[in-house]
Amino acid sequence: MAFKLAHTDPQTKARAGTMTTDHGVIETPIFMPVGTVASVKGVHQKELREEIDPDIILGNTYHLFLRPRTPIIKAAGGLHKFMGWDRNILTDSGGYQVYSLSANRKIKEEGVKFKSHIDGSLHFFTPENVMEIQRDIGADIIMAFDECTPYPCDYQYAKRSMHMTHRWLDRCLLHLQKTPLSYDYDQFFFPIVQGSTYKDLRRQSAEYISNVGAEGNAIGGLSVGEPAEEMYAMTEVVCEILPEDKPRYLMGVGTPINLLENIALGIDMFDCVMPTRNARNGMLFTAHGTINIKNKKWENDFSAIDEMGITFVDKEYSKAYLRHLFAANEYLGKQIATIHNLGFYIWLVREARRRIIAGDFAQWKNIMVKQMDKRL
Amino acid sequence: MAFKLAHTDPQTKARAGTMTTDHGVIETPIFMPVGTVASVKGVHQKELREEIDPDIILGNTYHLFLRPRTPIIKAAGGLHKFMGWDRNILTDSGGYQVYSLSANRKIKEEGVKFKSHIDGSLHFFTPENVMEIQRDIGADIIMAFDECTPYPCDYQYAKRSMHMTHRWLDRCLLHLQKTPLSYDYDQFFFPIVQGSTYKDLRRQSAEYISNVGAEGNAIGGLSVGEPAEEMYAMTEVVCEILPEDKPRYLMGVGTPINLLENIALGIDMFDCVMPTRNARNGMLFTAHGTINIKNKKWENDFSAIDEMGITFVDKEYSKAYLRHLFAANEYLGKQIATIHNLGFYIWLVREARRRIIAGDFAQWKNIMVKQMDKRL
Repeated sequence: MAFKLAHTDPQTKARAGTMTTDHGVIETPIFMPVGTVASVKGVHQKELREEIDPDIILGNTYHLFLRPRTPIIKAAGGLHKFMGWDRNILTDSGGYQVYSLSANRKIKEEGVKFKSHIDGSLHFFTPENVMEIQRDIGADIIMAFDECTPYPCDYQYAKRSMHMTHRWLDRCLLHLQKTPLSYDYDQFFFPIVQGSTYKDLRRQSAEYISNVGAEGNAIGGLSVGEPAEEMYAMTEVVCEILPEDKPRYLMGVGTPINLLENIALGIDMFDCVMPTRNARNGMLFTAHGTINIKNKKWENDFSAIDEMGITFVDKEYSKAYLRHLFAANEYLGKQIATIHNLGFYIWLVREARRRIIAGDFAQWKNIMVKQMDKRL
Repeated sequence: MAFKLAHTDPQTKARAGTMTTDHGVIETPIFMPVGTVASVKGVHQKELREEIDPDIILGNTYHLFLRPRTPIIKAAGGLHKFMGWDRNILTDSGGYQVYSLSANRKIKEEGVKFKSHIDGSLHFFTPENVMEIQRDIGADIIMAFDECTPYPCDYQYAKRSMHMTHRWLDRCLLHLQKTPLSYDYDQFFFPIVQGSTYKDLRRQSAEYISNVGAEGNAIGGLSVGEPAEEMYAMTEVVCEILPEDKPRYLMGVGTPINLLENIALGIDMFDCVMPTRNARNGMLFTAHGTINIKNKKWENDFSAIDEMGITFVDKEYSKAYLRHLFAANEYLGKQIATIHNLGFYIWLVREARRRIIAGDFAQWKNIMVKQMDKRL
């Protein structure tokens, strides 16, 4: 994978770059919409391409492994073909969902035993078989199998878990070498820094991960309930150590403000369910603050959802109409809010990129962070 | 309203015509997608315009009266503006939903008292206030307030109910004269033939309704559980009496086969929740028969949903992918199936029109009825 840093912001550590894979160029910083089970909930692939326009989306290995199941994806010729998405895809390793969704999970050195949250069936994830599953799903970027610690997490547990994550990383790397590509395009492997909210562990993990010399590096175990300031502190110490010439991916983050603050610390890639999940609950993100469209105050407001008009929904529908759809529990409301929020997130990272290149990212970021903190 | 009969089929009673209102031309025969509460469930207005492309859609007065409520629609400038749909709209009179959805409805000569199915609030519909509500909703075509009898219905009840529907019709007409238009475009009023499955009542009702001299005429009280043959028998006797130079609307019908058979009997307009509701349950209508996409047999079928490619979903998604979305309970599955089915219904009535004009409707209809009766 070719990663080129095009610009670095003089006042912050923000970076603008490009990553190139066999499925095209990813301009960074980038936000990856979450397409859990081969679908960004409520959004047609056509709308994703033509309206929201991300260079890359994310799929969840845990969900895809359970449904439709890896053999079906393999029979289709990989996830891109199965779901009809010819741009980039990244899959997580399933670790996070195993810990957060499945019942009766048992974490051992060998791997994790868990029960499916769907039918209770028993499964076993190891660093080795998760590499095989990710080969068959066929994303462009695949992730190491790690343990994602909860927040808060005591120091001793965080330390032991981090070391196991590092041993699992070695097993992932060893097994990947033995596991040929399933399709005719390349895959790139990202290891994951852990260490909970402890700076010394984060530094130690960042050094271990950096030594792997992977095509990109990720930071996991954040955005799990800790205060934003702790998240930023961890990002900062880790970014000091991670190589500058490789993309940095902060997993599971976050609010629009989180994105800008972490971009300023040197992060290049993000993913989060927030724009899609909150949309389905009637929360809209805008450049001027958040809107709870369910509020009665919008009942008679026939102005456009968002005058910025990033996607077609913003000017085509009024706030009063969208509020009505939520009040009447019409799914079109969720569809509209989802397209709006994802369009806004992609606009936000693209605009950040333009500002980094133009050289006024810091000033713009400070104005945006204040504006976006409002409730409209 | 200008209605022009362009062609009449020589072998059947099928007709091809055009209706013109202030919101544009409606080519008949036409199927009207149901947009219950100002939304065709799961379909963006943009998709409705650009992909499904009907000349007219239907809104439900009962639902719109309860949510968002008539004053909100009036404040928006009418339903077209509220929902962002600038083509034609027809509203039913609310009668059918009052009988089928609401609790504790009491039908008296004066009108119908009912409890909202949403919050149990008490309401009263009369021929007079339903005309006022329909003025404020602002559809291009509005319907008489009638009683829709259930099936089976005993003769005496059907007869009494029909006469009350006729008296209600007179009250609708009288009150409409006193109720000015709410907006700057015209509205056209259609009375409704009732009489259950009794030919003599249907004839009597068709004569009463024809004498009104309305811009169009509707047949109600069918597609409520009676065998298709009884429906066709009623359509046939009513179409013999209804004026030829006015459009004929068969309410709440039906399957693709029902549409073709009733077109052959002289019907010009249809509406039904079947294409949308069945879509949400995983049933697809195609020219070659119906598909239950939830069946395991489609799990590994990576062929296009429908090679005909009427709308973008047909060729963009595979059967296996659509089956997966239903299995995983992803709403995108319902969205895809809905666009497919509505696209197919609109194609079907448009193709019927082309065949009527070309003169080979009867032969085509007979082939299609056989094909569409299959289960794939």
